[in-house]
Amino acid sequence: MDFKELEDIEHKIEEREDFSGEKVRPLIIFFPKNEEEVVRIVKFARKVKIPIIPWGSGTNLTGAASCDKNCILIDMSKMNKILEINDVDWYVRVQPGIKLIDLFEELEKKGFMLPPDPASFFLCSVGGAVAESSGGMKGVRHGSFREWVLALRVVLPDGEVIKVGEPLRKNRAGYDLVHLFVGSEGTLGVITEIWLRIIPLPKRKMVMISALLKDFESVGEVIVGLRKNRILPELSEYVDADVVRALNKHLNANLKETEGGMLLISIEEDMVNDVLKVLEGKTIDVKVAEGEEAEKLYSLRAQAAIAVKAESGNVFYAEDIVVPVSKLPEAIRRLKEIGRKYNTKFYVISHIGDGNLHPNIIIEDKDTRERAFEEIARMAIELGGSVSGEHGIGVQKAKLMAEQIAKHNGIRVLDLMYQIKKLIDPDDIMNPNKYVELAYKFLNNSSN
Amino acid sequence: MDFKELEDIEHKIEEREDFSGEKVRPLIIFFPKNEEEVVRIVKFARKVKIPIIPWGSGTNLTGAASCDKNCILIDMSKMNKILEINDVDWYVRVQPGIKLIDLFEELEKKGFMLPPDPASFFLCSVGGAVAESSGGMKGVRHGSFREWVLALRVVLPDGEVIKVGEPLRKNRAGYDLVHLFVGSEGTLGVITEIWLRIIPLPKRKMVMISALLKDFESVGEVIVGLRKNRILPELSEYVDADVVRALNKHLNANLKETEGGMLLISIEEDMVNDVLKVLEGKTIDVKVAEGEEAEKLYSLRAQAAIAVKAESGNVFYAEDIVVPVSKLPEAIRRLKEIGRKYNTKFYVISHIGDGNLHPNIIIEDKDTRERAFEEIARMAIELGGSVSGEHGIGVQKAKLMAEQIAKHNGIRVLDLMYQIKKLIDPDDIMNPNKYVELAYKFLNNSSN
Repeated sequence: MDFKELEDIEHKIEEREDFSGEKVRPLIIFFPKNEEEVVRIVKFARKVKIPIIPWGSGTNLTGAASCDKNCILIDMSKMNKILEINDVDWYVRVQPGIKLIDLFEELEKKGFMLPPDPASFFLCSVGGAVAESSGGMKGVRHGSFREWVLALRVVLPDGEVIKVGEPLRKNRAGYDLVHLFVGSEGTLGVITEIWLRIIPLPKRKMVMISALLKDFESVGEVIVGLRKNRILPELSEYVDADVVRALNKHLNANLKETEGGMLLISIEEDMVNDVLKVLEGKTIDVKVAEGEEAEKLYSLRAQAAIAVKAESGNVFYAEDIVVPVSKLPEAIRRLKEIGRKYNTKFYVISHIGDGNLHPNIIIEDKDTRERAFEEIARMAIELGGSVSGEHGIGVQKAKLMAEQIAKHNGIRVLDLMYQIKKLIDPDDIMNPNKYVELAYKFLNNSSN
Repeated sequence: MDFKELEDIEHKIEEREDFSGEKVRPLIIFFPKNEEEVVRIVKFARKVKIPIIPWGSGTNLTGAASCDKNCILIDMSKMNKILEINDVDWYVRVQPGIKLIDLFEELEKKGFMLPPDPASFFLCSVGGAVAESSGGMKGVRHGSFREWVLALRVVLPDGEVIKVGEPLRKNRAGYDLVHLFVGSEGTLGVITEIWLRIIPLPKRKMVMISALLKDFESVGEVIVGLRKNRILPELSEYVDADVVRALNKHLNANLKETEGGMLLISIEEDMVNDVLKVLEGKTIDVKVAEGEEAEKLYSLRAQAAIAVKAESGNVFYAEDIVVPVSKLPEAIRRLKEIGRKYNTKFYVISHIGDGNLHPNIIIEDKDTRERAFEEIARMAIELGGSVSGEHGIGVQKAKLMAEQIAKHNGIRVLDLMYQIKKLIDPDDIMNPNKYVELAYKFLNNSSN
């Protein structure tokens, strides 16, 4: 393929891999420095009918940016500016390539926060987090990215630039297209500018309760107990006993090892006693940390996946199911059963407070690993949950997503999603054959 | 028209009027008691090609349910049950016909709240509030309905029933269609069941600060001051001097009358001093109320529109613009100028904390009234705001919405919205010729 008409745009030829281990082998990688260059790349790709894949930092876990030869990768890392932090209208306007951690730091200096904090925040790009509608540790109180995006500039698959939404929390001018693009995984257009809502840092003193639980089962009961007592923590995270061991081994965490793993709950200081009451009888040890000590626990939790990755020797799938909180005790019981069946441990990392579990499946044999992976996702569907809370679908979960929609929503819903994809991308050049499109094909093949 | 095949469904023939004063003259009104009856009505309507209009309580202010003879009205008032209040998963599942106030009362008994509280909450239906993505007084902290809807059952225009979304806060299974239906004003389908997120009632003591301001200009400065000091009230509402007079005259409010009108700020008791500091030098009188006294102020604010309606002798348009908070001082200055130009007062009611203003235009002559109305909306567009924050578009604001989108988003955005309407409702029977469709026609006529 001859890319001469784009040769003035920074580019290179290189193979990559995303965090799920999927290969990314584009024909060429472009590094546009502004929206005009993105438009030129998109128009060219459409003319020559080569698929385009936008790339943030490659931290996605579902192969959403994978490609085998026939694609152009648009690496957004050069478009990494903060364009505006508005301390009256309470929004920030950024380019998609900025690292989330860099944005967090600038906001904090001005007394603000953007709550969704995926564990990969020190690596991932804001554009990627929006395209995946990423969640994070503070999701239990503040939700995931889709609750924080106000407006987007997008280069559509035919090269036309639009803005969806307004930098206003309230805006009723037409159907909500913002939420169509948030979580669209690069299949509807290339995001070139993002307005995100921000809020002040908490005014009240927050503390971090770290509870070593008696057993794995206790964590479900504690979370249900918090809900029944109408307690809403800022963060409620859980890592099981095997993850604690991995943290000690690979990151010198120096955490106490117990059978029940560790629950972290961040909450306003004056609410601590309410939480301690719920924890009564379920723990071996409870500590209330603040300041640097609390920060350290938060940071260890954020790095839990790295410890598991080190432990696994790279042979692992990160699950990302959601179950209704009321079904957590059952989900945990069934997870243990599935573990026994496959003779494995699951290294469970979780945003337990909103029912979002990441069992990490470390099984050498790929087929067996996949079977365990699918069994866990189907358990979530059966319990009225979802196959993905925040990692998204990509290529990895398209079939499972189709099953969920067929069971919970009606296959017409997947048909509508697919029609919308075709409406916006009739030439099918935006990150094709993944996500909605792939799920649609699974469903149509299986029903034929 | 012969409706014999539906004669077992409760029905009557009647003319109505919505709260904007628009006439609603359907061929027939059906009162379905369940989803199956809705499906039969929709399939029949499609067969005979008669438009359908869903009706909640008729409190909309933009003619969104208007109809001149050729329509079937589906009155949802018989489908008014609470199906489930889940105190662990923190959602409520309801039928659309339930009154919002009835839902609020049941939630409160269990210690929960659904924050968006449109001033019409004592009359409006939940289905209507979702279809309009209504806002309310607590929007400044908690946003409008679109931030609270988890999932919906919808009868599509061809009679097929789907569920969009899941009763989970986190769910990444496919494009977000929930937000497409929230705020769709009955143009994409008939909502038959709704899952809404709920949260615990505030644990901390809330108080209501009522501040009588020196002048109209002060209110903009106070709100900017709150933002700069990173103070986020639960509610920050403003009514101008003329509204205060109307409340005294028509509802015996017994409020002190000053030139600057009244600002109400509800916030946690331990944050009061931070607010008072911002108010310094801007007020004539400040009181901090709690309990019943605070309730009374809240309720007076909710009834402000009724007082204005009584004052106006029914000749008024309720505006619903949003401006960026940073532009409030300028918006207020320009509003006064427009008032002088038309030799009128605007009886400003407002969710001032999020820049959402309701100037009420009381001008006898309809053409002049419309000119003033449009001038105010165009001012909002110029300031980077929106022509609607929570009332929606209906027939009243389609042209202005088209102007906003053309100026802020690109006309392609309106085209996309219109294509989505055609995709979901190819026969154009769901509440046709309003909102997106009407805006699209305006834009296409004006550009030809």
